[in-house]
Amino acid sequence: MSEGSLPRFSLFAPADYRYYIEDLEPFLSEESYVRYKCKVEVSLAKVLARRGLISGSSAKEIEEACGRVKAEEVYAEEQRTGHEIIALVNMIRARISDEAKPGVHKTATSYDIVDTANALRYQEAFKQVILPDMVSLEEALIELARNERDTLQIGRTHLQHAEPITFGFAMAWYVSRFGNTLLKVGTAAKSLTGKFSGAVGAYNASNLFVDDPEELEKEVLAELGLRAMEVSTQIVQPEALTDLMHYVASAFTILANLADDMRNLERPEIGEVGQPRGADVSRSSTMPHKANPVGLENVKSLWKNVMPFMVTMYLDQISDHQRDLTNSASQRNVSQVLDLFDYSVRRMTRILKGLKPHARNMVRNFEMSGDKIIAEPLQLLLSAYGHPNAHEYVGKLADKSYETDVQLNELVLQDQSLSPYLSRFTARQVELVRNPSKYLGIASEKAEKIASKWQQRLRDAGLA
Amino acid sequence: MSEGSLPRFSLFAPADYRYYIEDLEPFLSEESYVRYKCKVEVSLAKVLARRGLISGSSAKEIEEACGRVKAEEVYAEEQRTGHEIIALVNMIRARISDEAKPGVHKTATSYDIVDTANALRYQEAFKQVILPDMVSLEEALIELARNERDTLQIGRTHLQHAEPITFGFAMAWYVSRFGNTLLKVGTAAKSLTGKFSGAVGAYNASNLFVDDPEELEKEVLAELGLRAMEVSTQIVQPEALTDLMHYVASAFTILANLADDMRNLERPEIGEVGQPRGADVSRSSTMPHKANPVGLENVKSLWKNVMPFMVTMYLDQISDHQRDLTNSASQRNVSQVLDLFDYSVRRMTRILKGLKPHARNMVRNFEMSGDKIIAEPLQLLLSAYGHPNAHEYVGKLADKSYETDVQLNELVLQDQSLSPYLSRFTARQVELVRNPSKYLGIASEKAEKIASKWQQRLRDAGLA
Amino acid sequence: MSEGSLPRFSLFAPADYRYYIEDLEPFLSEESYVRYKCKVEVSLAKVLARRGLISGSSAKEIEEACGRVKAEEVYAEEQRTGHEIIALVNMIRARISDEAKPGVHKTATSYDIVDTANALRYQEAFKQVILPDMVSLEEALIELARNERDTLQIGRTHLQHAEPITFGFAMAWYVSRFGNTLLKVGTAAKSLTGKFSGAVGAYNASNLFVDDPEELEKEVLAELGLRAMEVSTQIVQPEALTDLMHYVASAFTILANLADDMRNLERPEIGEVGQPRGADVSRSSTMPHKANPVGLENVKSLWKNVMPFMVTMYLDQISDHQRDLTNSASQRNVSQVLDLFDYSVRRMTRILKGLKPHARNMVRNFEMSGDKIIAEPLQLLLSAYGHPNAHEYVGKLADKSYETDVQLNELVLQDQSLSPYLSRFTARQVELVRNPSKYLGIASEKAEKIASKWQQRLRDAGLA
Amino acid sequence: MSEGSLPRFSLFAPADYRYYIEDLEPFLSEESYVRYKCKVEVSLAKVLARRGLISGSSAKEIEEACGRVKAEEVYAEEQRTGHEIIALVNMIRARISDEAKPGVHKTATSYDIVDTANALRYQEAFKQVILPDMVSLEEALIELARNERDTLQIGRTHLQHAEPITFGFAMAWYVSRFGNTLLKVGTAAKSLTGKFSGAVGAYNASNLFVDDPEELEKEVLAELGLRAMEVSTQIVQPEALTDLMHYVASAFTILANLADDMRNLERPEIGEVGQPRGADVSRSSTMPHKANPVGLENVKSLWKNVMPFMVTMYLDQISDHQRDLTNSASQRNVSQVLDLFDYSVRRMTRILKGLKPHARNMVRNFEMSGDKIIAEPLQLLLSAYGHPNAHEYVGKLADKSYETDVQLNELVLQDQSLSPYLSRFTARQVELVRNPSKYLGIASEKAEKIASKWQQRLRDAGLA
Repeated sequence: MSEGSLPRFSLFAPADYRYYIEDLEPFLSEESYVRYKCKVEVSLAKVLARRGLISGSSAKEIEEACGRVKAEEVYAEEQRTGHEIIALVNMIRARISDEAKPGVHKTATSYDIVDTANALRYQEAFKQVILPDMVSLEEALIELARNERDTLQIGRTHLQHAEPITFGFAMAWYVSRFGNTLLKVGTAAKSLTGKFSGAVGAYNASNLFVDDPEELEKEVLAELGLRAMEVSTQIVQPEALTDLMHYVASAFTILANLADDMRNLERPEIGEVGQPRGADVSRSSTMPHKANPVGLENVKSLWKNVMPFMVTMYLDQISDHQRDLTNSASQRNVSQVLDLFDYSVRRMTRILKGLKPHARNMVRNFEMSGDKIIAEPLQLLLSAYGHPNAHEYVGKLADKSYETDVQLNELVLQDQSLSPYLSRFTARQVELVRNPSKYLGIASEKAEKIASKWQQRLRDAGLA
Repeated sequence: MSEGSLPRFSLFAPADYRYYIEDLEPFLSEESYVRYKCKVEVSLAKVLARRGLISGSSAKEIEEACGRVKAEEVYAEEQRTGHEIIALVNMIRARISDEAKPGVHKTATSYDIVDTANALRYQEAFKQVILPDMVSLEEALIELARNERDTLQIGRTHLQHAEPITFGFAMAWYVSRFGNTLLKVGTAAKSLTGKFSGAVGAYNASNLFVDDPEELEKEVLAELGLRAMEVSTQIVQPEALTDLMHYVASAFTILANLADDMRNLERPEIGEVGQPRGADVSRSSTMPHKANPVGLENVKSLWKNVMPFMVTMYLDQISDHQRDLTNSASQRNVSQVLDLFDYSVRRMTRILKGLKPHARNMVRNFEMSGDKIIAEPLQLLLSAYGHPNAHEYVGKLADKSYETDVQLNELVLQDQSLSPYLSRFTARQVELVRNPSKYLGIASEKAEKIASKWQQRLRDAGLA
Repeated sequence: MSEGSLPRFSLFAPADYRYYIEDLEPFLSEESYVRYKCKVEVSLAKVLARRGLISGSSAKEIEEACGRVKAEEVYAEEQRTGHEIIALVNMIRARISDEAKPGVHKTATSYDIVDTANALRYQEAFKQVILPDMVSLEEALIELARNERDTLQIGRTHLQHAEPITFGFAMAWYVSRFGNTLLKVGTAAKSLTGKFSGAVGAYNASNLFVDDPEELEKEVLAELGLRAMEVSTQIVQPEALTDLMHYVASAFTILANLADDMRNLERPEIGEVGQPRGADVSRSSTMPHKANPVGLENVKSLWKNVMPFMVTMYLDQISDHQRDLTNSASQRNVSQVLDLFDYSVRRMTRILKGLKPHARNMVRNFEMSGDKIIAEPLQLLLSAYGHPNAHEYVGKLADKSYETDVQLNELVLQDQSLSPYLSRFTARQVELVRNPSKYLGIASEKAEKIASKWQQRLRDAGLA
Repeated sequence: MSEGSLPRFSLFAPADYRYYIEDLEPFLSEESYVRYKCKVEVSLAKVLARRGLISGSSAKEIEEACGRVKAEEVYAEEQRTGHEIIALVNMIRARISDEAKPGVHKTATSYDIVDTANALRYQEAFKQVILPDMVSLEEALIELARNERDTLQIGRTHLQHAEPITFGFAMAWYVSRFGNTLLKVGTAAKSLTGKFSGAVGAYNASNLFVDDPEELEKEVLAELGLRAMEVSTQIVQPEALTDLMHYVASAFTILANLADDMRNLERPEIGEVGQPRGADVSRSSTMPHKANPVGLENVKSLWKNVMPFMVTMYLDQISDHQRDLTNSASQRNVSQVLDLFDYSVRRMTRILKGLKPHARNMVRNFEMSGDKIIAEPLQLLLSAYGHPNAHEYVGKLADKSYETDVQLNELVLQDQSLSPYLSRFTARQVELVRNPSKYLGIASEKAEKIASKWQQRLRDAGLA
């Protein structure tokens, strides 16, 4: 533990220099943590005063003092007392009159303050910064889905060419997945609760002074805009934060998936999307011709740090009896995990805004196996018109096409044994055989539909 | 891959012999998986017939054939064809007329069947078996919370004695945590969806035959009681199952926490709960006097297998482009994970039903530090009545009490410097100092309240 | 728990039907586990007889009885007694004379048998099956490295084209990584130890009968070809098995890496390797033209199951005091984890043996950016010959080449400002600018060197 | 990314303020990372000069310049260039003559510098700080094992009383486990290697200038005291660092196990060890009587952060083709992981040095079930002397003892049916029945033996 300021580059954790999001400082730094704990002490004092348990002037003194407490002095005092909250309380008391002193922290146990402060600051970090950032990313995805709704692309499964889609449709998949998870993150963040039930959760201390300690708890938390959990021990039920972090992990995994897809589409042999050079596409130190998608790689890489933190979260759900403290140090890392997530959301948004779909290359790749694509509709239609063995037969024709380099369409149209069936095809069905790029299903409509739906949903949720 | 039946003890996975839940066989075995895939093919055939895309008699033939397909033959056929769903379709076709053959699997891609069958069987496994088992456990917890609402116990933090609670209150903490998670499991299970959008999700194939392929999808899924996801690729959005498995992991972690607590309360030095000898408490092979809580240890141990599976779930959320198949083998393990969870829920229920709280030992342990417990209310009250330095002063008295073996109450009542404050205590406040076991806050009321609330909530949710 | 044989497809765990390796049954099945525990009891009896602590005829009776004990009866007896080892001992005793009965399990505690049996069967599973399978994979890699040592391929970093290598060189990277890990797996397997130190590790029971209980332990373990750990409690030190499983996880990760690389090289746009159709490359159920690399996908997928098991291993390193039993159920899953690993090693070996490098496509892809590749040597040489700003200047020329579609070589040779430097190039250096495919470093030599080295190393280790 | 210095409490990661180990700054901070990269550039320059590829004065200029480069300016330049190593090279070049400029970074690719610098600084961090800290912890364990070799304690399995050991024996278990892992950490740290094989590992660039590029690599690395890996791509083989981090995780898990054991022995009902109040045992903020073992809880908690990082390590073993960059950001977190480990090692050492075994309470707890403990030796001896059914019979007597509160010894000695056997007991065997605390096996000798062995082993390894 050390004081003062440390040169930025003496630090160990990249979240503190390389991936530091300044907008999150008011919520996630140690200084802000002290600030939030003070807020909680102030709310308590106000309610105690309102109830006549301390004087109004004491509450005012406490409020003023709380506005001036700094992390540095609290840490110094903790060195002396060995206790984070005793240190905080001492620093508040040091600033107020002897009359007001006993009113500080009255009825509270440390974790009434700690858990409530954390619930509040995480909730606000999501509301003020992280959720809006996620919304910006969602909007960038919506825009891509809409703009590219008609851009023909080969759909891929097993990394192989499958059937036609549009690039906008491929983006709609992410619009929907990320959108759904975004809303769950929002709900989970709102579900964080505080507590004011004392050292073992039975309101032992507060019940000394009031007959309705659950009411007292509600009032203190209401001051902060929080609700109470229906029962707590020394700590709030850990499941609420675990759920929130799960949705963060899940949302981040969707980003990792998207980053992989885009990096692969940028391979020189594929070339379906590109990015401008800049912070997200860098040169090699020795190969001046290269354009490396470092931004996308960075998103994937930070996901590898954040996802396994879920194991920590599950481990921290276990606390012996009315709690042990083995979740304390580990949970202090929630801050940097949220920072890394938010950093990645912002970076991905910037990348998507600069992303250049290369429609021409998409057509080129499509045409590589364009004729083969008719294999599916063909076997389905042949079968529908009574061919006894269509899947296998078309498979053989496809093999023949690979071997002979004759287009599959041609082989089909030349095949005498197929003409009885082909003659029953409708005009639209024949057209599909001739021009596989029409075999698009409802890709375009779906892209548009999902884009519109989510634009609306963000509005309905008050997020856009 | 191998056929026929294998001696039970030739197996590798303990979920298949030691922890096998027979009631889950209809949902989670490979045989049941084939059965569910057949169900999906039947629903498709019915809807196609209703729409006039295949004949009614074809649909009937398909339905009858599907009722007779067995995993063993599908596996044998897969050996030949190298494809699980082609094998299934062949086995259906082998049983029906040539006219009916083209109607099988028409418009569908493999994962229309696979993902839909999985959504359905997991949903039903939860509805029929796992959720009811979770409800039984919740009810056992409720009963303990209510029955022991007034049983005095020392509350523990940091594994040290803190303040009084009741054993029922300690159980109420689990009633609420497990109850909340149970409801989330239920909601997440209902959120699983199927899909019928074809090989890349754009309804390419079904759109060959119908103009409203999304409607067709809805109809097929409605036959099964499922909804469709708003957009899919070859696969459903993986987040729904990931969320469900997260809540399973979280519920299991609560069990692990409870198992730890009970194992510790059964330590001979503590002795606050006991269990009858039997399947969950075994003798040592060499130490005939010992009673080992192997049931509780088993629950904790299986949790160590299940929890890390979440890493697999997150990894499986990532699938390249419109999907790769790298989630296929790994997701086949969902079955045994659910089995191990259900096994543990049942075992814990049995343990809780046999659990014997030892109220006398709870009192004995309480009294070990009973007098010290007044330290908290005392310092709070002294402070409230104007003592300038109550926390520190009482701390010193407590130290003195440890050193001299004189009860803290006595030291307090003898202490001249405290009498000005003590004289202002109300009768109830004095009583607390004399009899620390009254310093219970609202532990009993809370235990009862939570028990009643959750009994009602289970009823409201149609679960009890 | 259930008896008899169960239809194969009533099972939950795919390791028991779909990915079952019959060769591992003698080591990893529950039946084999009973067999190994019997082996340990036999060794104990032999040593006790040799020491005169039981009669020679007792030892013989025990040996004969042990040869006939079956898992099924042990399980039935465990149902009655609630204890796995008591059940085993009873089944042995049931087969022998009253005189011999007290000699069974004499001085031993359950985990003397369990831990020793596990060490032995895992060690033998590695020696007999898993290591030889890993060696076959290593040999397939060596062969590819050697055969393709001169096959030009573009080296890729960031998924972008970087500099020339050969395909054999790319394989040598895996030869070395997998080879090194294979040797570590071998060493770790040999490091597994047994124990015979009794219920808490202090030889309390054996010291009743002998004065040199550590010697007794050594003798019993020597019968089995095992060593003792320097100190144990009820259990062996868990680190040895954790280390072994770490190396398994690490080796599996290398397979996953290789599978990813190959799947990507099989993308239709890249086409640098191919596989014959068959069990590892399957058709789509609806798209008869497709060839899906399902074998490679399967390897990656099973890795997602196995890797997170390391979290279980770390959790199982923690056991309270002289041990709790919370590692028992979880460690029973080691069997299926090893099965899945071995299955994947075999599958990857088969895939590599069928792998077809497409040298022509490698050249085609190389040529896509062949001219750009000279950027690196060019800037290095220009700089070496005094160009003040070579990296930046060449970067600009590369950009110009992209924009104008004029080959970078041409632009360079035409550039007047460069001629003073170019004139100082050696003949070989000029050749590199003209023909970038010569810019191969020592790729071929290295491929050969690594291949030879590892062939030798396998021989030196007695593995080939 | 941000410059200058930031107030300590604006940070997010507790490793940077709360758990910061200043002694690790020279190795693990970002500033030190720049310093180490400069060292590598200097070594390269020296070897190039020695080989005549650059002038001696250039090498000297480079060395001097490298001594003055600061992280802050490199970061600022990276903002401009988007590349960490280009930025570093520019900052070196900015300080030297035009003649010397081309010599900087000549033949190297970024990761020749990055991977080599990391191997070096991690190796030195272990050698200078982490291993010595681990040795101090090992020595504290050795001292406890030796000092308490004769202190009687009840051995515990399943958290239940089992058989006698000594507290020193319990510590010897940790001496051996931690000692073994410490040595493996040391070996793994020494196995880290650097690389100088260029952008794709084939020495393409260096082979432009020298015919023996592998020799050149060896020379550069030898300057730094490092070896080369037998083959690399753009990066070193990731397995070496993964192995090291595995051993760190494993060693940390042993600490977590020890912390759990000690916390439990400090429970008031057990009271077998204690700690002085101070930084590792703190008061409650409201309960002045409590002594909370926060130091031990802290160690367990930080383990929950560090252990799951192994999932990140395994994920980072996978890198597409000759490498992608998705391991870059994630591997930057190795620094804080090592910091948290070292912090915990130091804290545990301090705790162990202050630990007070309470021999009296150990005896008290032993006596709780002292008489029952004879059950094991008794049934073994009875059986050895011919009792047909000793285990079951003694079990029943033990039950009777529990029910009647008559000591088991008494019941045994009064039991007529046992006298024929008891009469055959040797004097020492009778003594064990009378005085179960003698049933210690070789616990004391073993404690001493392990303590001596490890003291010697540390010396042999040059570590003490």
